[in-house]
Amino acid sequence: MTKLDVCLSPALVPLFSVEDYIVVIIDIFRASSSICYGIGNGAAAIIPVSQVEECAAYREMGLDYLLAAERDGKVVEGFDFGNSPFSYTGQKVAGKTIVLTTTNGTHALHLSRNAKKVVVGSFLNLTPLCNWLKSQGENILLVCAGWKNNFNLEDTLFAGAVVEQLKGSNLKPDDAAIAANDLYQLGKHDINEYLKKTSHRERLEKLGIEKDIEFCLQIDITTAIPVLEGDKLVKMG
Amino acid sequence: MTKLDVCLSPALVPLFSVEDYIVVIIDIFRASSSICYGIGNGAAAIIPVSQVEECAAYREMGLDYLLAAERDGKVVEGFDFGNSPFSYTGQKVAGKTIVLTTTNGTHALHLSRNAKKVVVGSFLNLTPLCNWLKSQGENILLVCAGWKNNFNLEDTLFAGAVVEQLKGSNLKPDDAAIAANDLYQLGKHDINEYLKKTSHRERLEKLGIEKDIEFCLQIDITTAIPVLEGDKLVKMG
Repeated sequence: MTKLDVCLSPALVPLFSVEDYIVVIIDIFRASSSICYGIGNGAAAIIPVSQVEECAAYREMGLDYLLAAERDGKVVEGFDFGNSPFSYTGQKVAGKTIVLTTTNGTHALHLSRNAKKVVVGSFLNLTPLCNWLKSQGENILLVCAGWKNNFNLEDTLFAGAVVEQLKGSNLKPDDAAIAANDLYQLGKHDINEYLKKTSHRERLEKLGIEKDIEFCLQIDITTAIPVLEGDKLVKMG
Repeated sequence: MTKLDVCLSPALVPLFSVEDYIVVIIDIFRASSSICYGIGNGAAAIIPVSQVEECAAYREMGLDYLLAAERDGKVVEGFDFGNSPFSYTGQKVAGKTIVLTTTNGTHALHLSRNAKKVVVGSFLNLTPLCNWLKSQGENILLVCAGWKNNFNLEDTLFAGAVVEQLKGSNLKPDDAAIAANDLYQLGKHDINEYLKKTSHRERLEKLGIEKDIEFCLQIDITTAIPVLEGDKLVKMG
């Protein structure tokens, strides 16, 4: 029997031997949603980097990249865009390579880079992702990017949605996977409503990105699964 | 408004400024339950230490202490007892000082020692603990000892029971507190049954301590609140 584990915060990634797992990176509001949407809309690649400075360095190299940087939920001055999925439309990103740094998502990605495979999950590609995971026969670790290394409810709820779809597979959930799935049961009938009580939601509302939130909670609007190859996220072939 | 935060693993304690909080240490199976029971049964003090060697050193000092050491759920050879609450009866512990080291609970205690106050919570003293917390008007951090630095369901469920009793106070729960309380809503009607699906429960069953588990899930059998004073847990006056 293989394992289905949920890592509730990037700070807990070191507890897992990531090289034994396929890792799914989850940062629902909004990095992983925007990455799935952008890759689904034909972006050639998305390069996740940890520091704003690293991101800016790509411009100095004179290459034709789009630069996306966000800190504390806001676009960093001088960059092309941040985390809003509305910046990742086909018109804007098709054929382009995007260099992306965000508060939580890229951090989780970098910590997981030695996994068997690293893929990106969001409600936007939920079912295609789960179907692919079911076909792999590997241990699966769902890594919630959280907020500043702490637990958040939206990433955990999505992890629970994945656990739900993987029921009946030969996967044994750990305690965090059980909890995530139980929370998903409570929230699934109206995820947007359920998440209104969370702290991050309040932060995001203050930033005036209510439309982004609704967008990120759409289910199965793309079949693309972003996968890490070298230092780039590309569409799984 | 003051904060009601839940720290889901000792590995996340560094994310909180513990000096701004009253910290409640939670290690339901079984350290925090045994500590509450022992202090309630008249133990003079319980000294939590991190290492088995530290614990053994008290014997070499020739002092009349009871030594309790447990690793991976079992009593360490040569020690008086481990974590079983049945070792903490009045007959055994009244008037005694116990030196205790356990896998998870003492670790969480040591990480939290700079808090405004550190107290120990369990189902055994749930309501007296919550009544006291309500009267303090301070930020509250519920620290789940977890299992080897990772999340576990039983400690989180207890945190949710505390959040439940503190509703209506002027406390703002963080995402983890909201999640813990939602999980408690799912489990509260039969906590023993709910926890049967957890991983640690399987481990404990293998160790043959089913009776300990039932014991630790009793609600309000003592009014004692253990509080850390210097390096000792004593009964709150």
